[in-house]
Formats: sequence, structure tokens, C-alpha cells
Amino acid sequence: MFPGIDTGTFAGPPAATAVFTTVLTEGPVSRVALARRLGLSSAAVTKAARPLIDLGYLHELAATERSGPGAGRPASPLAVRAEREFFLGVKITADEVIGVVCDLRAQVHASARRSFDDPDVDAVLAEVGRLADDLFDTFPGDRTRVHRLGLALSGDIDRGIGLVRYSPFLHWRDVPLGRLAAQHTGLTVTVENDVKALTAAEHWFGEGVGAESFALVTVGTGIGCGLVVNGRLVSGSYGVAGEIGHLTVDATGPDCHCGGRGCVESIAGTDAIVAQARDRTGRPDLTIDEAVALARGGHEQVRAVFTRAGGAIGCAIAAVANLVGPTRIVVSGEGLAAYDLFDSHIRTSFERQAFGAAARCPLSIRPLPFEEWARGAAAVSIQSLVVP
Amino acid sequence: MFPGIDTGTFAGPPAATAVFTTVLTEGPVSRVALARRLGLSSAAVTKAARPLIDLGYLHELAATERSGPGAGRPASPLAVRAEREFFLGVKITADEVIGVVCDLRAQVHASARRSFDDPDVDAVLAEVGRLADDLFDTFPGDRTRVHRLGLALSGDIDRGIGLVRYSPFLHWRDVPLGRLAAQHTGLTVTVENDVKALTAAEHWFGEGVGAESFALVTVGTGIGCGLVVNGRLVSGSYGVAGEIGHLTVDATGPDCHCGGRGCVESIAGTDAIVAQARDRTGRPDLTIDEAVALARGGHEQVRAVFTRAGGAIGCAIAAVANLVGPTRIVVSGEGLAAYDLFDSHIRTSFERQAFGAAARCPLSIRPLPFEEWARGAAAVSIQSLVVP
Repeated sequence: MFPGIDTGTFAGPPAATAVFTTVLTEGPVSRVALARRLGLSSAAVTKAARPLIDLGYLHELAATERSGPGAGRPASPLAVRAEREFFLGVKITADEVIGVVCDLRAQVHASARRSFDDPDVDAVLAEVGRLADDLFDTFPGDRTRVHRLGLALSGDIDRGIGLVRYSPFLHWRDVPLGRLAAQHTGLTVTVENDVKALTAAEHWFGEGVGAESFALVTVGTGIGCGLVVNGRLVSGSYGVAGEIGHLTVDATGPDCHCGGRGCVESIAGTDAIVAQARDRTGRPDLTIDEAVALARGGHEQVRAVFTRAGGAIGCAIAAVANLVGPTRIVVSGEGLAAYDLFDSHIRTSFERQAFGAAARCPLSIRPLPFEEWARGAAAVSIQSLVVP
Repeated sequence: MFPGIDTGTFAGPPAATAVFTTVLTEGPVSRVALARRLGLSSAAVTKAARPLIDLGYLHELAATERSGPGAGRPASPLAVRAEREFFLGVKITADEVIGVVCDLRAQVHASARRSFDDPDVDAVLAEVGRLADDLFDTFPGDRTRVHRLGLALSGDIDRGIGLVRYSPFLHWRDVPLGRLAAQHTGLTVTVENDVKALTAAEHWFGEGVGAESFALVTVGTGIGCGLVVNGRLVSGSYGVAGEIGHLTVDATGPDCHCGGRGCVESIAGTDAIVAQARDRTGRPDLTIDEAVALARGGHEQVRAVFTRAGGAIGCAIAAVANLVGPTRIVVSGEGLAAYDLFDSHIRTSFERQAFGAAARCPLSIRPLPFEEWARGAAAVSIQSLVVP
């Protein structure tokens, strides 16, 4: 099924990693600009780039600029050959696997999804295999250039060893998913928390490129956050970071499933919204879609549930801005399907609680197509090629 | 008054900065260990160290170890000559200047303080000059080796250009304090926010050494936080970071002076505690000391004020742990004089709100002698020598 060849990584010396990362994330860059940016000599840049060119990952564009008046040699920018290698990215939910094939620049060339009933690890891995077959059926590129698979799922993941410590939706505990998937597919596998994977995609290939710090907030069943600070993803000394859903915003608020009180998720998570809407309407079987419809139809008490949820999310986003001061904050997630119901409340609350100049941090609010999660998984796989 | 000679900085090439920083913050290190740690060749370490040795900042200890079986040459650790240079550090409050003389390793060799009435910039700078004279009167070292002065004060500071954008206690706005102090003293001056300066001292010379991330929380009139994440101080893209005092912890709580609602500072800042205690006792002139005495004496309603304050601080510290996952959190500040009244409430609230493994983050609670703030100012000055 898979070509099954591990290319290993070419990124031995730090200079090669730095050169390739810069060219990959920021587009064509001249050697002169690389040397200046990375604090390397021109000779060191040339030495670092040579094996990357030989292996076909980088190529030289035609000279387009001179490095300055009096500088004799024209500067030939280095660029990435995006189709030198392709990557599978798969997001695993409670009942679905969603996959993409991406090139080195994380552009999507094919996508597919499959449902499953059985959350057993082997059954899910078999489904991932079938998903890969589906992807290759429509992938127009060279499938022998696929050597890596990125997996992403919600929960407590040890990316370093590919271990799923705990997945609440799949009821997995201490599953060595990276090793099992590698055995199953013959590919080099990465496993990452889905929010962190999305953040990686934004950091290298999206709105986070070039930002020393930024935050991605996802709103839905869970409320999560990926953080880049001082140029790197924040992973947390004890494996916990970005748990924005468990900030207290209402000391007298409801108990949360985490054991805390008044957490953002206990007010603004999808389950919390449904529970409050059921309570306000006296309809114990109300769904989230019905709650949204009622609120849109003008049901005041259900509207108030979304107002409160938006306020809680805005406070939490302001907490991120006040503590770490990101350059920008992207807000996304399946919960944003009902964004019209709380967007103004998120912004009002953010603006009230952001301290001084922190309120200048722009919020980008946008929908999250299903491939985005899978693309995040692929982005982590790309990173693992470049920075082992 | 001052020797008035600027040594400039020796730290040109990044390798020299890296070598000196590592030896300075982590104590004697062999060239072999330095090369391994910094990803440099042995030759590069030797080349980087030579000018530092020539200038007297580093010296070679006697060989104490061999670099491994079969490795012929003994490893001579490099160490810092702490007394090669001394630094003045001064913290400016609303009515006092507090100063120290530190060596290169931020060890305090003299300390002094002076009160003042007039918060005019020139008057305060004159007081800083008199404080320096006092310090030199008791400083046993070589005062010709003092070339740098670090200033620290609360408020919105642009460290890069030495500008006090806003100091609420001194009522200063847009004061170019660095430039004025340099003219006044002939020294090379740094200016930094006091909480960030304390954090710098902890990061380089205290509990933060070697930690990829840690947090310092100060409790008092204001409630602040300095954060180190991914090895560097977090400064905030818009100049705002660590504003833990303005996290919302009670959506229905009191209005805060910042314009927000239910902020930590509006519940647990010294002024908020006094206001609540006055309200509960009906004594409009109650002081913080009297409130502490009443609570210690068992006054239930005043005790409840401290209980609520401790709960709010604990929630805020948990927010830091949940978002950025520091290796450890140091809690300090003048508010901790009454620590016995809310310590258990801080811990209970932290443990309840810290998400999963984030609760493993140790809290170090300790008093803050007045020199510590001034030492923080000196630490920033030391950093400016090493990393311009």
C-alpha cells in the first residue's frame, strides 16, 4: 500500500535546519538575506544549502536582484521544491478519520474522510489504511514520494514518543499510536494533539508565519488553545499548556468536569450550552442545533446562554493577551458555526478585559474546514522531517 | 561622583554571548561541555572565550576532570571573574529609592535606601545620585569597576529605549529616564519594569536558572507576573505581558480600575482588600495593617476578605499553569506579609483549578527583602552588558 521507505532526515547540522526552515516558511530567500537573518557567513549558508539542493529539496531561482550597489554577484534566491515530498495528514475524531495529502509547503492535493463505529485501536488503524487508499485514488502526484504520516487527535499526547496518554473521545489510555501506525503503514509517523497540530500549521504556513508569538483558540465541544511564544510552540513543563478552557472566569459559576469551578468550558463548551438551553426551555432532549435555531429565532433565554458563553470566551482570550501578548489571535473551531450568536459578545468582553495596549491584538475569526485539522497533522509531519 | 567610563560591550559574535551567558548563569563549565551544550565546535568555543579571558571576564580553573576515557587532554572549566565589574541597581518607588551594588554574578556587596518627597524627575535623579554616594561609602570593592546602572520601577516601560511610558505611582508619562539618568551619572543606564527586572534576576541568578519556563508572581498593591517561556522573558507584542492582576476570575465581581470587571486585582490587591474590610467593618479609615490584625484576631468577616483574595490569586496562578505550563512558580511581594491569612486559600484554589498534570508545578512562596527589587534592576544591567 505504502512505498514504505523512510528517507530519514537530512537536517543534521543546525545551519541546514535553519536555512531550510526559513526558506520553507517564508518563501524564496536570497543567500545574502539568509546569512543576515541567521547570523551566518555566506560560506556557511552555501555549505548548508548544498546537500539540500543535491537532494532536490531546494533549488535556485534565476537571479532577480543584486545584493547591493557595488556587490558584483547577483543574488539567486533559494526556493523550496514543494513537490519533492508529500505527506499524509489524518485527524482522528470519535467516529471519523479525515485525511489529506500535502506537499512540503502544506498545500492540500487530495482529501477524503471515512466514518467508523469501532473505536478499537486496530480497527481505527485499519480505517486509516483505507483512508490512505482513498487519498491515493485521487492524489494526482507521485505517491512514491510519500514517506511520512502525521496523526492528530484531541487529548493528552506525548509527541516525542508518539504516545496517546489519554483520548477522552476514543477512550484510549497509553496507546503507543506512533509505533503501531508505523508498523501498520511502513511510514514514519508523528502523533500530536490536534490543537497543537493546527497551531503548527498556522505557525509555519499560515497567519503565524514570522510572528514571534501568536495564539490559536478553538471553540467547540472543548475550548482549546495553541500558543507560540518566543518563536516556538509552548508545550508546558508538565505536558499541559494552552488549556484555555479551564481558566476560571466566574468564581461562582458551575462545576466543571475537570474538578474546577466556573471554567470557560463549563459555560461556553457545546455540552454546557446545550445543558443551559435545556434548563431554560425545560426540554431535556434539546440538541445544539435546536438551541441555535431557538436563539436565532429570538428566544431570549436561549440567546442569553450564548451571550454568557461569548462573554466567557472573550474573557479567556483577553487572559491570553494579558499574559503572553501574542501578535495576533486566531479564533476558530466547529463551535463557530453559531458564531453570529456570540461574536459581538466575544469582542465586547475581550475589549473590556484586555489590559491597555493588549486590546490592540487583532482577533481573526474564521471557519475551520474539515481538512484544516488534517492539514495540521501533515504540518507536524513536515516539521519532523525538517527539525527531527 | 561616578567613574563615568562606558566599557561598551564585548559581546559581538553570538558564540561569545552564548559562552559567556552559559558560564555566568550556570557556574564553571568545561569547554567540552560548552561545545556540546551550544552545538559549537571546540575550536569555536576556544575562539569565543579568548577575548573574554583577555578582558578578565572569564578565567580558566585548574583542570579537574577529563573529558572521557581515552580523551587525552584534561578539561579546564571556564569560570566568571565575578568582581571584574560591578553594577548599581536601583528600584524607585513612590517615595523611596532602594539601591545595591552587585558583582557580575548579582551578588550584593552593598545596599542603601533614601526617602524622597518630590516625585519630580530631576529631584528623583538627584536622590539616585545621593544614594549612589551612600552605596560607595560602604562598598568595599573597586568603584572604578562600576560602569552601569540599572533602574527599575513599576509601570509601562520600554526597556529598548529606556522610556517610562507611564508610571502610575510617580505620575510620570513619557519620561526618557534612561537618557536623563545617563546624562546625570555618566553611566550606561538600563530601565525596566520592576516585575520584569525581578524575573530577570530569577531567570539568570535564581530559581529560574536552567528552566525553559517559569513564572514570578508578585502580590501587593498591584498583582504582577514575570514570565519566561521557551527560555526567554515574555515581553508581549504590544508591550503588555504578565498582567495576571487583570485576569477575570469573577464575572460578577467588582469593577476594576482598568475598566474590566472581576479582575484579580479588584479582589486581591491591597487597596481592594482594604476597601472590602472597611465595608465589612463599617470603619472608613481602616488601614491594611489594621485589617490584617482584625483577621488574625478572628474577625470572621475580615477573614473572609482574605479568603476570597487568596482564592482569586490561586485561580490566577492556575491560569498561568494551564496556559503556559511553567516548570515552577515563585510567589512573592509585599502583600505576602499577611501570607498566613491566605496561603492555604491560594493553594486550595490553585490545586482545584490547575488542569491535570499542571497541578504538579511547584509553588515557591517566599518573602521579598527590599534589596531584591534593586538586585533585579542590577541583573538587567548585567544582561545589557552580556546581550546588548
